[in-house]
Amino acid sequence: EGKMAKSTQLIDNEVFQAYATYTAIVLLKMMLMSLITAYFRITRKAFVNPEDTASFGKGESAKKFLRTDPDVERVRRGHLNDLENIVPFVGIGLLYALSGPELSTALLHFRIFAGARIFHTFAYLIPLPQPGRGLSWAVGYSVTFSMAYRVLKTAWLL
Amino acid sequence: EGKMAKSTQLIDNEVFQAYATYTAIVLLKMMLMSLITAYFRITRKAFVNPEDTASFGKGESAKKFLRTDPDVERVRRGHLNDLENIVPFVGIGLLYALSGPELSTALLHFRIFAGARIFHTFAYLIPLPQPGRGLSWAVGYSVTFSMAYRVLKTAWLL
Amino acid sequence: EGKMAKSTQLIDNEVFQAYATYTAIVLLKMMLMSLITAYFRITRKAFVNPEDTASFGKGESAKKFLRTDPDVERVRRGHLNDLENIVPFVGIGLLYALSGPELSTALLHFRIFAGARIFHTFAYLIPLPQPGRGLSWAVGYSVTFSMAYRVLKTAWLL
Repeated sequence: EGKMAKSTQLIDNEVFQAYATYTAIVLLKMMLMSLITAYFRITRKAFVNPEDTASFGKGESAKKFLRTDPDVERVRRGHLNDLENIVPFVGIGLLYALSGPELSTALLHFRIFAGARIFHTFAYLIPLPQPGRGLSWAVGYSVTFSMAYRVLKTAWLL
Repeated sequence: EGKMAKSTQLIDNEVFQAYATYTAIVLLKMMLMSLITAYFRITRKAFVNPEDTASFGKGESAKKFLRTDPDVERVRRGHLNDLENIVPFVGIGLLYALSGPELSTALLHFRIFAGARIFHTFAYLIPLPQPGRGLSWAVGYSVTFSMAYRVLKTAWLL
Repeated sequence: EGKMAKSTQLIDNEVFQAYATYTAIVLLKMMLMSLITAYFRITRKAFVNPEDTASFGKGESAKKFLRTDPDVERVRRGHLNDLENIVPFVGIGLLYALSGPELSTALLHFRIFAGARIFHTFAYLIPLPQPGRGLSWAVGYSVTFSMAYRVLKTAWLL
């Protein structure tokens, strides 16, 4: 019981709770990209692995579904952009949450990041005219940068 | 000594130990994809960077090895799929492990996820006929989703 | 106040401080790849999304900027290689930092990894002749492997 108590102390901390909530949300949003990719692959009949087209028949009739589709590629670029930006948020955000920031400041960081990434996904998939997508990317990027600044100021040990 | 003791308390927790074990396993499995890619690039002589083919001679004789190979591309797709799925597992799994689940429930989640991802790699590389790969992907996805549900229920703080 | 104190205990630990510092550094280095990609896309005028070329005019005059450029592709490969290698470092490094290693040993691991990945980026972007890039990749890979070995020895719970 003592050990289990220890383990739950961290998640009892409000800043850590906020981190956990927003990290779960942005990671679930990133996971959603897999489902959207699958949706477009199936509706556009655009696959990349020969074994994925076997149900469409054999030989040449199935081969024509081994192709790229602009909508599929667009979702995949959005997914990769999520990986490139949400991975730093999750890693730096954890260290930031453990650096003892004010709850209100932490919530501001997490909310802006999550909002920016959700907007980025809509901007990529609709697509919205630029600079909509670019700005939402820059906002999320800046939030992670701001958290990294505090982490390095607090924990600096080279 | 007091500080070092603090730092080891977390890893003394059994759920956290299970998380650490399975996270190390799935991340090592993901790292293995780099070695398999390198193996196929070398045996298939299929490279992407001109400087990687310099040992095969100069000019046209080396240029012919700057090409894509179906086996290399297949491993790379498997690697990217790992990134897309193992990153959410590692991030959400950490929060889940800190949310105080029963050890047996946590082990069930971690074991099913690790098993599904290892099966997914074999299904991708052999390759097995569908829906083998698709199902193993869906199993791992569902495990992460189930952990995220508990994290949000426990830590919900918007 | 009790809770906030708890949350800062982890980051008061020197090994964890070192982990936080080097994780922030390598994640910031990875984030830098996005800026370098954007720089090359703009200077080489090589874009992938039609909406990104709208400011260059309409129709055929803008369409010619929807193309791949060797420099852009090179940075993107470096970025993906970062994701493939820095993600395992961040995940396994956290568990390693919590496994109670000596500060000097931990610093050695973190410093070699960070140095290897920074060298890897230069080797990729200049580019340096092989085996420069390959060796720096292998050094970072081995550091992560060494940390994973300690994690599994300490936390092994299947």
